[in-house]
Amino acid sequence: MSDTIGRLRWVIPEGYIPPKSHGPAPEFTSHEAFCVLNTNFEDAHLNVTIFYADREPVGPYCLTVPARRTRHFRFNNLEKPAPIPEGTSYSSLIESDVPVIVQHTRLDSRQSKNALLSTIAYPCAD
Amino acid sequence: MSDTIGRLRWVIPEGYIPPKSHGPAPEFTSHEAFCVLNTNFEDAHLNVTIFYADREPVGPYCLTVPARRTRHFRFNNLEKPAPIPEGTSYSSLIESDVPVIVQHTRLDSRQSKNALLSTIAYPCAD
Amino acid sequence: MSDTIGRLRWVIPEGYIPPKSHGPAPEFTSHEAFCVLNTNFEDAHLNVTIFYADREPVGPYCLTVPARRTRHFRFNNLEKPAPIPEGTSYSSLIESDVPVIVQHTRLDSRQSKNALLSTIAYPCAD
Amino acid sequence: MSDTIGRLRWVIPEGYIPPKSHGPAPEFTSHEAFCVLNTNFEDAHLNVTIFYADREPVGPYCLTVPARRTRHFRFNNLEKPAPIPEGTSYSSLIESDVPVIVQHTRLDSRQSKNALLSTIAYPCAD
Repeated sequence: MSDTIGRLRWVIPEGYIPPKSHGPAPEFTSHEAFCVLNTNFEDAHLNVTIFYADREPVGPYCLTVPARRTRHFRFNNLEKPAPIPEGTSYSSLIESDVPVIVQHTRLDSRQSKNALLSTIAYPCAD
Repeated sequence: MSDTIGRLRWVIPEGYIPPKSHGPAPEFTSHEAFCVLNTNFEDAHLNVTIFYADREPVGPYCLTVPARRTRHFRFNNLEKPAPIPEGTSYSSLIESDVPVIVQHTRLDSRQSKNALLSTIAYPCAD
Repeated sequence: MSDTIGRLRWVIPEGYIPPKSHGPAPEFTSHEAFCVLNTNFEDAHLNVTIFYADREPVGPYCLTVPARRTRHFRFNNLEKPAPIPEGTSYSSLIESDVPVIVQHTRLDSRQSKNALLSTIAYPCAD
Repeated sequence: MSDTIGRLRWVIPEGYIPPKSHGPAPEFTSHEAFCVLNTNFEDAHLNVTIFYADREPVGPYCLTVPARRTRHFRFNNLEKPAPIPEGTSYSSLIESDVPVIVQHTRLDSRQSKNALLSTIAYPCAD
């Protein structure tokens, strides 16, 4: 099974952390997430860059997905070098030192019944 | 990081601006958006063409995504050469002079609790 | 603009027409749709085949997308050779004689507030 | 029609079975599903591996999609070698002995009005 699976660079053009929530935290906190699967037998070191509409990109945010593991990261929880403000348009570029696969998901509970969206991120040609 | 990322042409076959909304504008106004990330160090000039079911395509709509920035455009707000009518099926072709990445999103608040959909747009082979 | 854009064959593995609806018809009738853009200067003739879990595939359903037009087809409305039963799992294969682009969307209004999903269909290598 | 369509390996990075539901079972039971279309004239034998955040991958789950059929599998219903716990982040790798096409869908009815998400899974280069 699983020799090399995935790509080194992924893009999620849509980004927006809804500034309100309904329901118990943390599961119904409005959030935006990217899920990363690392099928390799070595850890994946990620550098995430956040692009904005009206200021310079911010990053890298440094994250690790251990060998043979998945991680579901919430953009809401990124802290260093700077948290992403709520209610603001952004995009993300996710770069890894080994091939991974990335999916984008948002849970929006602003209007009391949660809405969901998801898509496989855009895999860049390496 | 980021030499050339993305493609020059993208397609979103599904298009429909819901004609009703619930909740405060503009965030809960039913809308359809395309998010564009430009990772290049030069501006991206976009030409958008809108296709309809029963009349000639309309365009180009000319938009700019500055270097190293993202823009979240609402189809609702396109004005020249002509606004897109609500409640009408359409498709869009997005062409850029430098590679970009495009994602499609709709927020539908017609029935008081918003629903969401999203997908990476179709990247044409250049 | 637009020399040849798209592919000749597309697949939508997920298929399910929700058997109930809330809200005024036809816009809030639970439905499943595939949107097709034809950027060519000649008509696209589509053959759609429906696959089921427990019986032989049914088709072709013959449809046309005129030159330089889009069509949003509801699976609910396919009639010949046979309508698709509600509440049943199916998949679809969409074949065209000229390249097109296909997106899948469902509106589910069974529980009074509509839910949406969408994804670009799977483009087969031609 | 349909010589070989699809790929041998697919990945769904996002995985989460919502631990609550509203509405009549089984159609409104919160669930996560993967839909598989097999257009071949021979059966597809699937091996599914589930990856977690904090323990070793589990699998293979062995499933069959008969020739010229579709199957909509719920992750909730996988049993051997071990069921997937609710409310837990996971990813899935789906491997087939003949080319198939895979789509990911979740129905989340935790907050009484169901939400939906869907995307074509990530097709690995074979």
